Amino acid sequence: MPAGEFHHPSPPQIPPGSMEEEEWLWGHIKTEARLDAEAEPALASYLYSTILSHSSLERSLSFHLGNKLCSSTLLSTLLYDLFLNIFSTDASLRAATVADLRAARIRDPACISFSHCLLNYKGFLACQAHRVAHKLWTQSRKPLALALQARISDVFAVDIHPGARVGKGILFDHATGVVVGETAVIGNNVSILHHVTLGGTGKSSGDRHPKIGDGVLIGAGATILGNVMIGEGAKIGAGSVVLIDVPPRTTAVGNPARLVGGKGQPTKHEEIPGESMDHTSFMAEWSDYII
Amino acid sequence: MPAGEFHHPSPPQIPPGSMEEEEWLWGHIKTEARLDAEAEPALASYLYSTILSHSSLERSLSFHLGNKLCSSTLLSTLLYDLFLNIFSTDASLRAATVADLRAARIRDPACISFSHCLLNYKGFLACQAHRVAHKLWTQSRKPLALALQARISDVFAVDIHPGARVGKGILFDHATGVVVGETAVIGNNVSILHHVTLGGTGKSSGDRHPKIGDGVLIGAGATILGNVMIGEGAKIGAGSVVLIDVPPRTTAVGNPARLVGGKGQPTKHEEIPGESMDHTSFMAEWSDYII
Amino acid sequence: MPAGEFHHPSPPQIPPGSMEEEEWLWGHIKTEARLDAEAEPALASYLYSTILSHSSLERSLSFHLGNKLCSSTLLSTLLYDLFLNIFSTDASLRAATVADLRAARIRDPACISFSHCLLNYKGFLACQAHRVAHKLWTQSRKPLALALQARISDVFAVDIHPGARVGKGILFDHATGVVVGETAVIGNNVSILHHVTLGGTGKSSGDRHPKIGDGVLIGAGATILGNVMIGEGAKIGAGSVVLIDVPPRTTAVGNPARLVGGKGQPTKHEEIPGESMDHTSFMAEWSDYII
Amino acid sequence: MPAGEFHHPSPPQIPPGSMEEEEWLWGHIKTEARLDAEAEPALASYLYSTILSHSSLERSLSFHLGNKLCSSTLLSTLLYDLFLNIFSTDASLRAATVADLRAARIRDPACISFSHCLLNYKGFLACQAHRVAHKLWTQSRKPLALALQARISDVFAVDIHPGARVGKGILFDHATGVVVGETAVIGNNVSILHHVTLGGTGKSSGDRHPKIGDGVLIGAGATILGNVMIGEGAKIGAGSVVLIDVPPRTTAVGNPARLVGGKGQPTKHEEIPGESMDHTSFMAEWSDYII
Amino acid sequence: MPAGEFHHPSPPQIPPGSMEEEEWLWGHIKTEARLDAEAEPALASYLYSTILSHSSLERSLSFHLGNKLCSSTLLSTLLYDLFLNIFSTDASLRAATVADLRAARIRDPACISFSHCLLNYKGFLACQAHRVAHKLWTQSRKPLALALQARISDVFAVDIHPGARVGKGILFDHATGVVVGETAVIGNNVSILHHVTLGGTGKSSGDRHPKIGDGVLIGAGATILGNVMIGEGAKIGAGSVVLIDVPPRTTAVGNPARLVGGKGQPTKHEEIPGESMDHTSFMAEWSDYII
Amino acid sequence: MPAGEFHHPSPPQIPPGSMEEEEWLWGHIKTEARLDAEAEPALASYLYSTILSHSSLERSLSFHLGNKLCSSTLLSTLLYDLFLNIFSTDASLRAATVADLRAARIRDPACISFSHCLLNYKGFLACQAHRVAHKLWTQSRKPLALALQARISDVFAVDIHPGARVGKGILFDHATGVVVGETAVIGNNVSILHHVTLGGTGKSSGDRHPKIGDGVLIGAGATILGNVMIGEGAKIGAGSVVLIDVPPRTTAVGNPARLVGGKGQPTKHEEIPGESMDHTSFMAEWSDYII
Repeated sequence: MPAGEFHHPSPPQIPPGSMEEEEWLWGHIKTEARLDAEAEPALASYLYSTILSHSSLERSLSFHLGNKLCSSTLLSTLLYDLFLNIFSTDASLRAATVADLRAARIRDPACISFSHCLLNYKGFLACQAHRVAHKLWTQSRKPLALALQARISDVFAVDIHPGARVGKGILFDHATGVVVGETAVIGNNVSILHHVTLGGTGKSSGDRHPKIGDGVLIGAGATILGNVMIGEGAKIGAGSVVLIDVPPRTTAVGNPARLVGGKGQPTKHEEIPGESMDHTSFMAEWSDYII
Repeated sequence: MPAGEFHHPSPPQIPPGSMEEEEWLWGHIKTEARLDAEAEPALASYLYSTILSHSSLERSLSFHLGNKLCSSTLLSTLLYDLFLNIFSTDASLRAATVADLRAARIRDPACISFSHCLLNYKGFLACQAHRVAHKLWTQSRKPLALALQARISDVFAVDIHPGARVGKGILFDHATGVVVGETAVIGNNVSILHHVTLGGTGKSSGDRHPKIGDGVLIGAGATILGNVMIGEGAKIGAGSVVLIDVPPRTTAVGNPARLVGGKGQPTKHEEIPGESMDHTSFMAEWSDYII
Repeated sequence: MPAGEFHHPSPPQIPPGSMEEEEWLWGHIKTEARLDAEAEPALASYLYSTILSHSSLERSLSFHLGNKLCSSTLLSTLLYDLFLNIFSTDASLRAATVADLRAARIRDPACISFSHCLLNYKGFLACQAHRVAHKLWTQSRKPLALALQARISDVFAVDIHPGARVGKGILFDHATGVVVGETAVIGNNVSILHHVTLGGTGKSSGDRHPKIGDGVLIGAGATILGNVMIGEGAKIGAGSVVLIDVPPRTTAVGNPARLVGGKGQPTKHEEIPGESMDHTSFMAEWSDYII
Repeated sequence: MPAGEFHHPSPPQIPPGSMEEEEWLWGHIKTEARLDAEAEPALASYLYSTILSHSSLERSLSFHLGNKLCSSTLLSTLLYDLFLNIFSTDASLRAATVADLRAARIRDPACISFSHCLLNYKGFLACQAHRVAHKLWTQSRKPLALALQARISDVFAVDIHPGARVGKGILFDHATGVVVGETAVIGNNVSILHHVTLGGTGKSSGDRHPKIGDGVLIGAGATILGNVMIGEGAKIGAGSVVLIDVPPRTTAVGNPARLVGGKGQPTKHEEIPGESMDHTSFMAEWSDYII
Repeated sequence: MPAGEFHHPSPPQIPPGSMEEEEWLWGHIKTEARLDAEAEPALASYLYSTILSHSSLERSLSFHLGNKLCSSTLLSTLLYDLFLNIFSTDASLRAATVADLRAARIRDPACISFSHCLLNYKGFLACQAHRVAHKLWTQSRKPLALALQARISDVFAVDIHPGARVGKGILFDHATGVVVGETAVIGNNVSILHHVTLGGTGKSSGDRHPKIGDGVLIGAGATILGNVMIGEGAKIGAGSVVLIDVPPRTTAVGNPARLVGGKGQPTKHEEIPGESMDHTSFMAEWSDYII
Repeated sequence: MPAGEFHHPSPPQIPPGSMEEEEWLWGHIKTEARLDAEAEPALASYLYSTILSHSSLERSLSFHLGNKLCSSTLLSTLLYDLFLNIFSTDASLRAATVADLRAARIRDPACISFSHCLLNYKGFLACQAHRVAHKLWTQSRKPLALALQARISDVFAVDIHPGARVGKGILFDHATGVVVGETAVIGNNVSILHHVTLGGTGKSSGDRHPKIGDGVLIGAGATILGNVMIGEGAKIGAGSVVLIDVPPRTTAVGNPARLVGGKGQPTKHEEIPGESMDHTSFMAEWSDYII
């Protein structure tokens, strides 16, 4: 039985964000990996080295990131040490990891198991490594933070400035080509597809990147530029170019982006698109979409 | 004489898809590589290790993919074994490889030789590795298939779900950033540029990705979302966002995409854009394109 | 004190493009790296191996590129030799490197030091490696040039055909997903964001890619196709799709792109967008941008 | 329970050298490895990649040797292919491997399991790789055979000329520093300790190295030079220097070596020292050993 | 000033084996490395990665051993973790490391600094790794201990069975080819040259290897076989073959070994040869040494 | 035709040690490698990367040594640079390389071609790397010299102190386990077998290692200790232990070593053993060799 068929995404009675949840999840991941290793000997070595030989989620993750992000001039042992040190001493980072794993497992129908996300999702891995880079940034260890950003961008093609603040329960789906600038802020429970840019507006420094509210969904290839506010629960359609604020619970689509329902009377939705992942329900109202 | 000047893209009297064609092509590739190795000693070691030391196209390809996709936790020998085993026992995969090489050689003016495509085209390499991942997927070896997908996405920035079905004679040109979802289907003789997304529409599982007909051309950065049908011979302009069906032999452009000629009376073309690679002939009719 | 706080981006009395400038810059980079190494022991090994152990900028850059672009079949020593040989014997390449470093340092507010750009900017590194590939191309060493292009595309997700001609003072910002075709020409002091395509129009060979004038700014995700001229000092908005010429000092935005101010009377700006990096000032005039 | 405690070194009713023995042994090795992997998670990845993911002993051995002997200029995939090809097609080599594993398991009290020998004994591994090199030598593939010899000497510090003929049931115990010349011959069931030299006598080519009979034991550091015959069942004491023939079932010790019991009436032993591994029983008779 | 000229091998008032000594030594090693890094930029990266970036001797040593002993199937991160875990939790191992560093620095005139020994002495490194393997052995983690032994033997050509008990203040000088069997015991302040064997006597298991008293010196190439006692302060001449006990403070030389001064009245020395390293003072009394 | 059968070891009319000889030899090596690459495709990549892609012997050698001696903390590019810099600027080192290649080709019947020695002889490679380490030592770059010594000892099991002075036309045959101390001197045209020690006598520094005259032959496993003189043309038998001077053109054998013919009237030979490689002709006179 492959791991995917053994899933209880919602453990009963375990409070989200608790130490218990972290332990439950780690046990669950090990069970998944064990079943996969049994079913697929060709993958067993991989699963043992990355998951099954480790005593905790942070050790597994630090090992995996160290081996992924190392280069001939930045050794895996050094990175492993760095990651482990930070994950071990900052419970909030570990809680964010857990929330991100849960987000991928629930929101992405292609995510068949927690271990699949932990090992294989470049968006997930880039995000965890970014959190470490961000921590270094806040400790004024800027050169190391920037070197880490560069490795993440080389290896995963995900380029998040270490200054950017990222919430919990984030899903970077597919993730290739994501760019997030230095003063960007991403709230909780946000889902961001590949090729999304949260960019700046020029060469002056200062606060110059987008602020993404909780529960926002940003479709593939959307470009949001400047210190604009995307209100909580808003949805940005794929390929949109957004240069000004988008109100909460509204949908902006197109290049240049317009609000579905019109600027004056935008249609408001109830759902939280960052969680429901509904990319295309606005279609009927997309005024001139006339193929 | 560099290999590029020694080319007979169309061998006479050799039926496409036959074993003879595969042999002819492999002989041709070795000749190209030999000429290049003679002309450029700095490249000879590379050409010998990847092509000239091998006795067949599938051995060369398996070796090259194994070395490209390996990591410190997924060894090259393991991947080589896996690729060789599958390519050796499935003639249809080998025929698809041959058709893809021919597609690149004929359609892409920057492709100066078959060996150039075999060694250097990330789109070609990602596609061959995907076919192996897909075969594993159909054999219910999902965890291995997904690990392979992740390596392809890390190394080539091409993210094709192993569940996706891909035809023959495919050209993924430039290829960086291509994303293809689990239930997508791509027909034969399709050409897809970089940054193209064949994506899903939400978090529900099931059949949720585009179906691309034979001979379709999808321009750079186009985003096609949902279980929509792009009819055979259709053309999708660069940067388009497509959420509904596109009729055969028509052209859709823009964000949101519109049919060239109008919804009611779309202009139909005779050519097969996936083969002719004509990206821009619709311009005159692109109603409001008024720079 | 981290390196970023020790900066004199504009050395007094040193003529740009001179040998003196190169020496000044190299001395400056070593000083930055030394300060960073002192402040951050975890990074010291990296900084010594990449910068501080070298006697010149071209040695440092050749070493770094050789280690970044090598693979199991293209060894670092071979690439190092190749890069060093070409950078050492072609002063114009070294001058372009200096101009590019200066461009990043001045135009990109996230660039805190020259050494940061030298080590970590994939756009900068891809551009330097491209210049070597282009030199090989002009020497008819095409197979080696193409192998190099492929490594650059694998490692940095930046795909520049070795035939493309690229000026000096270029900033490829973020750079992931940039594609530049064989007959494209990029002038001096151009700034190009990530996901930008300078692509061709079909499968016929010949002169078929865009020509970008001096001082142009091309926003993230813009797609420019065909042998069109983007006039000096023009600005292309993020996400635009451009298939025809754009006059000098004008701004084109949207998909399909339109001139800000209208086709007949386009607004002309005084600034040089490639240097000012102003991405969004056209917004007020973007006729139907109505969120 | 560690693997070492689960041992049946002598399977009942299985004829030595048969295919059945090979299969029995391979099954046994997998059981050992599985128990070890369960008991020691830190080693599980190693055991899965080297043993448990493989379908046969020759695949496991070829994989392990390919990864051990590879270098940056001789890739693991190439060596794996070479080893697998030869082991798969020559049953006598596989039979010799089985006999060597059995020899180590029975004769060496420090050998706690077959898998321990297969993975960790440099003498065993060097000997298997030598057999492949010897096969290449007999096929007139001398440069490849010599390159392999050099890798074995670099990696294991065991230097066996590919021309040397080596029997079955060989134990190279500890093995560091063993040197065996081109025209040496080693019989069956021979045990050779570390630092042993079977060397030549000068610079003339031709038959110039020792011939070692069946069942011989050669102690640590012994040096045997020239085309001399060490009779079957003879024993050579540690540190001995032997330049002339040694009769069967006798013991030669010292520098220069003398026969125990005297030249005229040497003491003959019944045992087969290569199997009994008795290194020191001659002591009482060692005439002037008078500490 | 190279590090070698900055030496105070005997810190005043610091009790040997104390935590203070460990801290003093680590500070001293960092000073040496810093001076060397300044004087030799080509080595600075090496010195920073191995010594200067670490916060303690055990971290530096674990990092260095992990990188030295890793292979494609036993990753550096795994070994680093293993070493660090054991060195961090067992103060007696750290004290032994300090004593060994001091031994090399004082006894070996070619040892110009502590850092030189720490980084470059294969005998020192093999001994530290052995102590970890021994600890695993005593914890019944035999397969891991044996895998470690095999890596040490491959990488350093030093083959010490993890069962062997080794004291403190040990100098394995040059070290290539050293073999130490499972039940061997080595006392404190022992010096052992290269090619020395402490071997067994046959294939029976049980206590079968030499016991080496405190302060013993064993010359290059000496072979000691069987469960014999080499008394404290004894000296074994280079190339000797010893099969029976050697009394304390006596010298045994030759093959077979004899006591200097004769069996009945052996010459006794006052010095501790393991510390004085006097290899050849017995010469005058070497009865028949008559070149 | 394998390279070995195409040999002209003595080019007519080319003065030994001249630039002409170096060029002739390099041309010859390339011819050998080319023939081997043609005959053995599996080795072609290796031969191109190590020999055929290079423009000079010193480039080939520097490349090969850089790749052999590198580690994760001492990169191949750094070592390549170091070797190339020194070999390029010191003609005497290049002349010594040529003389050593010639020595191996003429004296060792197992050496079938110059390229075989260049690529595969660890004794040759260790000796060339030692010469570079020695040069660094004389330039007071001691830490780098010692780091190099350590890498040579790890990789080749050949431990030559960088202070040792080594002549030209040296053959280190098999080479594993050779140890040469800091103040040792080796003359020209010397042949030294494996496991030979030229060691010191204690812990006092100063001149304390053997001096080996021109044309000496030292048999396998011989140990020579202390500041003793081995006269020109002397021969040291395998396994000998030598602690005092040996007169020119005489033979010392045994442990302890004695002069063949007796101390008073030693037999003198006419030949130069270092060149004739006659290891065993003394046997008849080896007084008590009485097997």
